[in-house]
Amino acid sequence: MTAMDVLARIRVVLCETSHPGNIGAAARAMKTMGLSALHLVQPHSFPDQKAYWRATNATDVLDSACVHETLDDALRGVAFAVACSARSRDVAVPAVDAREAAARLISHARLQPVALVFGNEQAGLTTEAVNKCKLLASIPTNPEFSSLNLAAAVQVFAYELRMIAIGAPQLQPPRPLATHEEVEGFYDHLEQTMTQVGFLNPSHPMKLMPRLRRLFARAALETEEVNILRGILKAVVHPKKR
Amino acid sequence: MTAMDVLARIRVVLCETSHPGNIGAAARAMKTMGLSALHLVQPHSFPDQKAYWRATNATDVLDSACVHETLDDALRGVAFAVACSARSRDVAVPAVDAREAAARLISHARLQPVALVFGNEQAGLTTEAVNKCKLLASIPTNPEFSSLNLAAAVQVFAYELRMIAIGAPQLQPPRPLATHEEVEGFYDHLEQTMTQVGFLNPSHPMKLMPRLRRLFARAALETEEVNILRGILKAVVHPKKR
Repeated sequence: MTAMDVLARIRVVLCETSHPGNIGAAARAMKTMGLSALHLVQPHSFPDQKAYWRATNATDVLDSACVHETLDDALRGVAFAVACSARSRDVAVPAVDAREAAARLISHARLQPVALVFGNEQAGLTTEAVNKCKLLASIPTNPEFSSLNLAAAVQVFAYELRMIAIGAPQLQPPRPLATHEEVEGFYDHLEQTMTQVGFLNPSHPMKLMPRLRRLFARAALETEEVNILRGILKAVVHPKKR
Repeated sequence: MTAMDVLARIRVVLCETSHPGNIGAAARAMKTMGLSALHLVQPHSFPDQKAYWRATNATDVLDSACVHETLDDALRGVAFAVACSARSRDVAVPAVDAREAAARLISHARLQPVALVFGNEQAGLTTEAVNKCKLLASIPTNPEFSSLNLAAAVQVFAYELRMIAIGAPQLQPPRPLATHEEVEGFYDHLEQTMTQVGFLNPSHPMKLMPRLRRLFARAALETEEVNILRGILKAVVHPKKR
């Protein structure tokens, strides 16, 4: 099963959402991370033009959204549901952070349908709703201001799900680096040139070369870069007429 | 320094934001994660009532926001800036994902001002703006739908910053880096000198400066190193007699 298949199996359940714009923004957040299964429990207004405006091009997620009367309906067939809540509280299920919840969801999603459940914008989830889930997950927030927008919370959870589903991704393949000899050849050339222009005094080298080696070692030079740098050094000693 | 202090030092720079509502939503996203330093470069409309509506109770972040004419102004004094972009592309700076960028930002923020730079909602950041930063960071998205809302992108980065700030303590103290102005001053000096010695032909620049920027961005120059490099450039043009 690919990462895409796993993400496609994860339901996002929004309970009693007040503002249809938030449903649209949540759909957009889901789609950016590869989620698509949106389930709505008693939305105050849906379908609604405001949801479509905020969804931009994630309207397919809205078109295929399922509307339910109860949370039990929305969780039918689901094997592992996570309640998302801003505050930890006295509930029957273990509390974890968003990252751990995402890891648990992805691991179950490879086998069975799973769900991420969000409450109303003001009231959040009822204790009864949380207790229908297997985990309570919170996003670590500023204790003085924990009011994440609903779609922002969906975005963070969806992001964590994607990060785990795709594993540590490599955005860039590793670059081929210059060989040891190429780099050492550059250092020799640099030292000679600095001596020629009088910047380096061989009898008082002032740790200049070790400092420059440290700088270029951090950069991990490529062959082409060594060639450019040596080209500059050559031009310094034999300026081209223009 | 506490996690709170570190987060408070991180600038969020929004360039040419079209919709004031997004500025408000970004301010809210920042505050939920403990960030507070908002810098705006040529916002289309600010201050604006729409920003205040979307910020809910994060109006203090808007009240203290700084408006700038240029990105250089917004980055004054900043030692480590990260450009946030949806797409990877041919730029002079290394590309990483949001999580790695956040780790690097937090490590530098313990010593010096750092910044996270976002572009316009439609156009993103210009290549020129990206090249003023030390890293290009992307949020891994669905390749078929990568259009994160601006505030959603700010939310994900701010979340990653908080996760790292409150997480494991630093094993190695970071090195103090050269400021934005110092590094830009070096690039100017390098370009002039290469032109003077005939290595760089201003009418056929051959991507030479972007390549050199990429090399030195990887190294993340220190102030003393900038001074050594500029010393070499000076000696090249006015060789000392020995």
